[in-house]
Amino acid sequence: MTSSVTSSASSPSPALNAAELTAERDRARRDYEELVRRGLSLDLTRGKPSPRQLDLAEALLTLPSGGHRAADGTDTRNYGGLQGLPELREIFSGLLQVPAAQLVAAGNSSLTLMHDSVVHALLSRLPGAERRWADEPRIAFLCPVPGYDRHFALCERFGIELIPVPMTADGPDMDVVEGLVREDAQIKGIWCVPKYSNPDGACYSDETVRRLASMPAAAPDFRIFWDNAYAVHHLTDERVEIADLLALCAESGNPDRAFVFGSTSKITFAGAGVAFFGSSPDNVAWLIGNLGKGTIGPDKINQLRHAEFLRDADGVLAHMERHRELLRPKFDAVEAILSKELGGTGLATWSRPAGGYFVSLDVLEGCAREVVRRATEAGIALTPAGATHPYGKDPRDSTIRIAPSYPEPEELELAIAGLTVCVRLVATEKLLEAAG
Amino acid sequence: MTSSVTSSASSPSPALNAAELTAERDRARRDYEELVRRGLSLDLTRGKPSPRQLDLAEALLTLPSGGHRAADGTDTRNYGGLQGLPELREIFSGLLQVPAAQLVAAGNSSLTLMHDSVVHALLSRLPGAERRWADEPRIAFLCPVPGYDRHFALCERFGIELIPVPMTADGPDMDVVEGLVREDAQIKGIWCVPKYSNPDGACYSDETVRRLASMPAAAPDFRIFWDNAYAVHHLTDERVEIADLLALCAESGNPDRAFVFGSTSKITFAGAGVAFFGSSPDNVAWLIGNLGKGTIGPDKINQLRHAEFLRDADGVLAHMERHRELLRPKFDAVEAILSKELGGTGLATWSRPAGGYFVSLDVLEGCAREVVRRATEAGIALTPAGATHPYGKDPRDSTIRIAPSYPEPEELELAIAGLTVCVRLVATEKLLEAAG
Repeated sequence: MTSSVTSSASSPSPALNAAELTAERDRARRDYEELVRRGLSLDLTRGKPSPRQLDLAEALLTLPSGGHRAADGTDTRNYGGLQGLPELREIFSGLLQVPAAQLVAAGNSSLTLMHDSVVHALLSRLPGAERRWADEPRIAFLCPVPGYDRHFALCERFGIELIPVPMTADGPDMDVVEGLVREDAQIKGIWCVPKYSNPDGACYSDETVRRLASMPAAAPDFRIFWDNAYAVHHLTDERVEIADLLALCAESGNPDRAFVFGSTSKITFAGAGVAFFGSSPDNVAWLIGNLGKGTIGPDKINQLRHAEFLRDADGVLAHMERHRELLRPKFDAVEAILSKELGGTGLATWSRPAGGYFVSLDVLEGCAREVVRRATEAGIALTPAGATHPYGKDPRDSTIRIAPSYPEPEELELAIAGLTVCVRLVATEKLLEAAG
Repeated sequence: MTSSVTSSASSPSPALNAAELTAERDRARRDYEELVRRGLSLDLTRGKPSPRQLDLAEALLTLPSGGHRAADGTDTRNYGGLQGLPELREIFSGLLQVPAAQLVAAGNSSLTLMHDSVVHALLSRLPGAERRWADEPRIAFLCPVPGYDRHFALCERFGIELIPVPMTADGPDMDVVEGLVREDAQIKGIWCVPKYSNPDGACYSDETVRRLASMPAAAPDFRIFWDNAYAVHHLTDERVEIADLLALCAESGNPDRAFVFGSTSKITFAGAGVAFFGSSPDNVAWLIGNLGKGTIGPDKINQLRHAEFLRDADGVLAHMERHRELLRPKFDAVEAILSKELGGTGLATWSRPAGGYFVSLDVLEGCAREVVRRATEAGIALTPAGATHPYGKDPRDSTIRIAPSYPEPEELELAIAGLTVCVRLVATEKLLEAAG
């Protein structure tokens, strides 16, 4: 396994003759029948940390140990402090590439901050906007695909139009992005998971980030929703760094363009971490002004708890090494099984991520839904095919997201091996049907 | 001090002649000069628990002690569980008069749940609604006055029209409420703090609750925002009970009318408690469906921590007794000083709350703003006059909200005594001017 994110083959190219294909299909059928007989109940659906990963932060349960006062003397038990504890913002400032003064530490979910940012933009004019988004005739967001289904669902719910844009190994196809954003003033946002992206593990190149920051936009209130969910979630020694979007936006004369999000959900506790929002001073003032109408402050005790536990940026990185020790063998096992069972068959390609939480598996066009259906029947739960695309519609019906983090290693191996059986079965049936 | 919420006099009725008034004014002036000379710095602005009250829950800082599993085996550290931990919902079910199955336990702020309920109603059609509130030509809320400024600010921000309705000792004037709600289909909500209301301490009578539940409403999507913030915040032995709004709404054929809110902000930690939403099954499904687009679940560890600390409903009530021991002397001191300095003068009336967090002081018409200004100049910070009314406009300019909870007893006494000087000064000047 290398740190590359390219697939094992540029595209599937089966070269079997009909008799060989039939033999392969029959072998896959026997394997599938055997798989179903085993009555598995395995789950590869969501990017959840495993219990052993959560155990790494078990000490948090009985913190803070030093009482309830923050470094500046604030009584964290009481109301107030909308921007969040300074000491925790300091810890994550460099890791998220946001000056601490422009970073907001909030509740337990960065998804909530993304949701609320969209809600507030709909209902309160953004800096630079001509009107509230709710008063626009149409709002559209660009969605690099494959992408994260919760980003899409959040927008769909508000009737925001989702426009897919192809991903490359360097991030979204910037020629496409630039063309659309320059022409269409109703395009108000783009969803980005810039490092170890969900699900294909891509890392945005410096050139991609520079172009995102500096491209002309028809909408004066265009925003980049920069979901840096895997900022420190390395699987290799490389510790990929990406360019500093916020700084590049400011340098390019687009200081208000970036909304940066992050969280400790996959650092400490998935359900009880701290989420962050970072942006320009004007955007931060806008968000805090809106947040202040609906809260008297975040849970500062949980922030104090996190500051004590993580200590500083080096403490975060050291903690992430322990996650890596648990996660890396799982990703290695996925890679090994996929290579052994599917390598060289031309039936699938897949990502080899250097970080993050997912492996993206591309099966033959028109096969993903059927693979997921067959796997489900065999007791292996997968994220629905299509979930990586807006409206659940993968036009090639080819991408399947694999989430290896949660299952125990033995279960993971069973599930991936079972999945490869489904891929072989559906692909050989499809090819035989096509050959006809 | 009785548990009555009526004022000390039905209306101020000064009966001094001009010479007596002048003497009173001169005495008030001397007292005020002396007050300013003392250079105080005291704060009566917000309903914040004092550090000693927060100390009562200090054990929470190092809970949960029994690990991370909920009663049903849920790993509280991980994602999930949108409705919140069942064991915590059970504890608050009876106290908030909501079946546990219809209660949602969320993050640290009930204000956020109120805000989000309005946001979701604006952006996603409520059960029974013809359209989203954002698509209505006009939205109005009834606001019993005096009321809570954060309720008003939350609505103002969304351009929701605020219609004041007079409070009585039994809750809002129901003749007025019924008349408006029956006629105007654009009235979509009413703000209620039904027990120990903010700021006048009124408790809604059973008849008021029954009429709210059963009154005809022109809007099919009319909602009662029932902010039961002080459900267990008794200051007397009486433990006032109010009628069960949710049950009465269901019995009256208006099952979806009530949105019930509560929190532990003034039970455990103001900044790190747990907030609740309760309603009909349809409304709960609507809220959870919307919440689910913006979060993968609340902080369940904090809920587990609270369940362990509070144990059961009796545990909550026992804990509130300890709050009462700290709060009651402060309210007694306010009453004693107001009575001593202003009793029988006809210059002011005030509430004698049997629970909650506030005393409402009514000064002579046209004097509240000036009293607050004079107090501020003397180093005594008060909630701005008018804050108890929509748009900050108290048409009589007479209501001042006193928040006695936070200051130390000696500070509180100094502040209230200083405030009475300001009341005497402004009132006597006003009366002389009117006589003049």
